[in-house]
Amino acid sequence: MARIEKVRADHYLIPLPRVLEDSMHGAMAGFEVVTARVIDADGAEGVGYTFSCGVNGGAIADILGREMAPRVKGRDADLIEAIWKDMWWAFHYGGRGGPTVFALSALDMALWDLKAKRANMPLWRLLGGFDPNVPCYAGGIDLDLTAAELIDQTHANFAKGHRAIKMKVGRDRMSEDVAKVAAMREAFGDDLPLMVDANMKFTVDGAVRLAKALQGFDLTWFEEPIPPDDPAGHARILRDGGIPIASGENLRTVWDFRTAIEGGVTFPEPDVTNCGGVTPFMKIAHLAEAFHLPVTSHGAHDITVQLLAACPNRSYLEAHGFGLENFVEDPLEIRDGFAIAPERPGHGVNFDWGKLESVRA
Amino acid sequence: MARIEKVRADHYLIPLPRVLEDSMHGAMAGFEVVTARVIDADGAEGVGYTFSCGVNGGAIADILGREMAPRVKGRDADLIEAIWKDMWWAFHYGGRGGPTVFALSALDMALWDLKAKRANMPLWRLLGGFDPNVPCYAGGIDLDLTAAELIDQTHANFAKGHRAIKMKVGRDRMSEDVAKVAAMREAFGDDLPLMVDANMKFTVDGAVRLAKALQGFDLTWFEEPIPPDDPAGHARILRDGGIPIASGENLRTVWDFRTAIEGGVTFPEPDVTNCGGVTPFMKIAHLAEAFHLPVTSHGAHDITVQLLAACPNRSYLEAHGFGLENFVEDPLEIRDGFAIAPERPGHGVNFDWGKLESVRA
Ligand SMILES: [Mg+2]
Ligand SMILES: [Mg+2]
Repeated sequence: MARIEKVRADHYLIPLPRVLEDSMHGAMAGFEVVTARVIDADGAEGVGYTFSCGVNGGAIADILGREMAPRVKGRDADLIEAIWKDMWWAFHYGGRGGPTVFALSALDMALWDLKAKRANMPLWRLLGGFDPNVPCYAGGIDLDLTAAELIDQTHANFAKGHRAIKMKVGRDRMSEDVAKVAAMREAFGDDLPLMVDANMKFTVDGAVRLAKALQGFDLTWFEEPIPPDDPAGHARILRDGGIPIASGENLRTVWDFRTAIEGGVTFPEPDVTNCGGVTPFMKIAHLAEAFHLPVTSHGAHDITVQLLAACPNRSYLEAHGFGLENFVEDPLEIRDGFAIAPERPGHGVNFDWGKLESVRA
Repeated sequence: MARIEKVRADHYLIPLPRVLEDSMHGAMAGFEVVTARVIDADGAEGVGYTFSCGVNGGAIADILGREMAPRVKGRDADLIEAIWKDMWWAFHYGGRGGPTVFALSALDMALWDLKAKRANMPLWRLLGGFDPNVPCYAGGIDLDLTAAELIDQTHANFAKGHRAIKMKVGRDRMSEDVAKVAAMREAFGDDLPLMVDANMKFTVDGAVRLAKALQGFDLTWFEEPIPPDDPAGHARILRDGGIPIASGENLRTVWDFRTAIEGGVTFPEPDVTNCGGVTPFMKIAHLAEAFHLPVTSHGAHDITVQLLAACPNRSYLEAHGFGLENFVEDPLEIRDGFAIAPERPGHGVNFDWGKLESVRA
């Protein structure tokens, strides 16, 4: 038994080299990272993290460090399902969703890391084991780029090993979105797997209009055409727009995903740092399988490669760095369109804690 | 124009005289209250608050005071819809639901209070005006009480002016729930409006089983039989259990309520302190009206009486003190089954700030 001795929370703010923009969140100058370190009675350590777009990080760290940590101290770290359920209900009123589930995600990730390290196994093998080579794509936050800049960025992504690309849409003039997609197809040919992401910008009618205008470009999916709260809206976009729909980075529970899938989301896209952690991420992936759907991902590609490597229905992993890779000892290996789950024990992400000190929030 | 000069957040912990218990949250030793004070350039002040069952309060105060306050400084306090929308999207990633929406609820309430004070009008008149006499019920947290204790508590509630009662259900043995409901009917007769609240304890099958066992007791509603994430489950309980269903204290958006109503919730029950504030509460009430449904409420009865007094479809107001009334200058008046919305400008709740200092968290 691995008795939990201590949980430590730390809050960092990683500035972006350039202010990024998407259609709904406005300008983002930095990302916040909150880390969870679970230390057991033998001195073994599991590490988890979550991130935000620059707000809510203080709340996440407060819940994790001040409120959750004392509640899990002394518990058996192996009983992750039991800890998860107790935390879910202890924090439910005032906590279902929002910063609380981010905090729980980081804690849960740390517990799985600890378990896999103690088993001397990479997480993807512990979770079932399917294939360590996971197809991936480069996700850009590039709504403000011109077509030429987007093409340059894509060449740079190819040089890094990428073979599939996701670009933002949601310009005020629809013709600009269409022209940029057309330019990408022209530059890289018909076989490039290409996705678009609207970050919830549209009404249902607006999304259908853009989907129809993009029908000739063989897009792999249309991501977050509308806010996540409208299952019937997703159904209509899928039916009338004629393009597969991805959504999930703004869903917070397994149950949210069931409702979304029943609505019309064909590429469920959980984020291990905000869906509640590894425990619910795997349940969402298996739920998708039960609905004969693939599962893709959002964020935290360094950890998520381990999870999708355990899923027979894994589709593309999103690889989308915001600078955290500069604080990690062995960044994720990407080779000819695949991300490779490492064989190191645990999730295999080792932070440079000393370097992180320089960006403490 | 009322330019926002400052927003102040304060965090209090109000201990309960006796540890309370319901079926899912376990023991509650105290409630946290986070207040929002919006001061405009003329020195006028609007006050809002939210509360939690003893966790997440630090996160709420952090978001409200450290993150939201600087973002609304300088804005026109009258443009509440504009401020609300900007806050919703600025905090959406990491914030949709959970502590963030609690913080937004307190801010929004303060803005409405300020607006009504500046108009020299009670909030219920400003919001449309229907009837200041709002039917109400006493909501107990009384799962652990015996039938005799519950009857004593009900007599005490009658002495305070109540004429309708809600009691907890969800004992491990169903026969105990049924016996307590039977004892209440026996003691107070067929005409007492009586509700039961399971705080999400059951599976769908378990809820149907209890609802069937309670069918002979003419209950006004069965509250939160299951967690809020299962619209199809609510539909089945309504159909097979044969008792109206109330739910809402764990829903966080107008859109959550639409999905819940379409599922089978017949008594939508928003809480102004966690649904996003006065702005979404009124939209939820009007949404219910569009579906030919009543609207009831959860929590914060002192403020909510103002909102239901503006709704033609208002059903019972929940009156459910956790001790905050001891820090309020003029507690809510309850008379022969009705709560009376005061004619004071604003929402009419004036805190004793000096006394609150003694419970600062
Ligand atoms: Mg996205
Ligand atoms: Mg209730």
